Amino acid sequence: MELINHLKWRYATKKFNNEKVSAEKIDQILEAINLTASSCGIQPYRVLVISDPEIRAKLGVGSFNGQILNSSHLLVFAAFNEVSTAYIEEYIKMAEKQRNLPEGAMDEFREKLTGYFSANAQETNAIWASKQAYIGLGTALLAAAELKVDSTPMEGFDPRQFDEILGLKEKGLHAVVLLSLGYRDVENDYLVDLPKVRLPIDEFAAFVG
Amino acid sequence: MELINHLKWRYATKKFNNEKVSAEKIDQILEAINLTASSCGIQPYRVLVISDPEIRAKLGVGSFNGQILNSSHLLVFAAFNEVSTAYIEEYIKMAEKQRNLPEGAMDEFREKLTGYFSANAQETNAIWASKQAYIGLGTALLAAAELKVDSTPMEGFDPRQFDEILGLKEKGLHAVVLLSLGYRDVENDYLVDLPKVRLPIDEFAAFVG
Repeated sequence: MELINHLKWRYATKKFNNEKVSAEKIDQILEAINLTASSCGIQPYRVLVISDPEIRAKLGVGSFNGQILNSSHLLVFAAFNEVSTAYIEEYIKMAEKQRNLPEGAMDEFREKLTGYFSANAQETNAIWASKQAYIGLGTALLAAAELKVDSTPMEGFDPRQFDEILGLKEKGLHAVVLLSLGYRDVENDYLVDLPKVRLPIDEFAAFVG
Repeated sequence: MELINHLKWRYATKKFNNEKVSAEKIDQILEAINLTASSCGIQPYRVLVISDPEIRAKLGVGSFNGQILNSSHLLVFAAFNEVSTAYIEEYIKMAEKQRNLPEGAMDEFREKLTGYFSANAQETNAIWASKQAYIGLGTALLAAAELKVDSTPMEGFDPRQFDEILGLKEKGLHAVVLLSLGYRDVENDYLVDLPKVRLPIDEFAAFVG
């Protein structure tokens, strides 16, 4: 199974060399994230791509993750702060167009969604949105691995610092998780040759009945 | 890119036929989930596999997702309720063994982890653990797609009902998201031929600098 080979090949890269990932590969990784599943299909998060070293140096201040700066590209997964009725209405209009349906054909679904999300506390929706971003993260690191691009998922950063520097609040977003992309520095990454640590499969998964 | 083909092939299956997914394929999907990334590597969630229709009928009571019952297998992603010092200590022991390191070689990392998680509120750790499960979900649906197994990710279920029926609380777990597996009923699934709805890539992703 190709996917299992990709998963065995990848690891949380601690040190990247200076090689840049091509724009074409970045585009493929983004396309894969955009294509993966999200609950109700509404994609309640966005991905920011940052290569500029000055911005990344500022973003990484105080973090133990040197890869925020020292990698080819940094992906920032930023989730919605709220799930507004206006957003759902726009999404449904888009869905009707993409499916060649008459306007209003998805009214029932739209009402179900707006009813559900508007009844929730804003924080509940924000946490829900951030979980959806992790589906994207899981996809991105696999897409990178298929392209033989190394990556590091990172939670060790200051989300408020990211929100401020990237102006995320104004966009209704908050940073939830990062993925650095690049190529492993085989000589200097201590993790390159260490075996992957995983639970025995029968501890991780259980057949209930 | 194979992954993009898999992503285009898959969709949230609404109606499965009666064909069963082979044990071998289920095992491969579980192996892929077990191999994917988790923060700090500690895999703070478990996957339960349920095929028994009686259990599934009970689990699905009150849910609009008929696929909880009507599919070949149901995967339940269940996240940790807390991240205990005891668990981290066990994990570190296992990691040292798998990496052929002397006992105590990872003491510094262990202390960092136990310090971090024990300082957090239990709910914060539970939410964090549930996000990690979504990385697994994103991996599982891709693994299924490579094997040409259809799947449906589902959040529309009663978590407390699941926790009770499956005895999750006693195991320190709580159900966070589901994935039904099986084969699409081409004749009777209205979603089979509808185009996938996705944001234009330049709305979903942005190049910041």
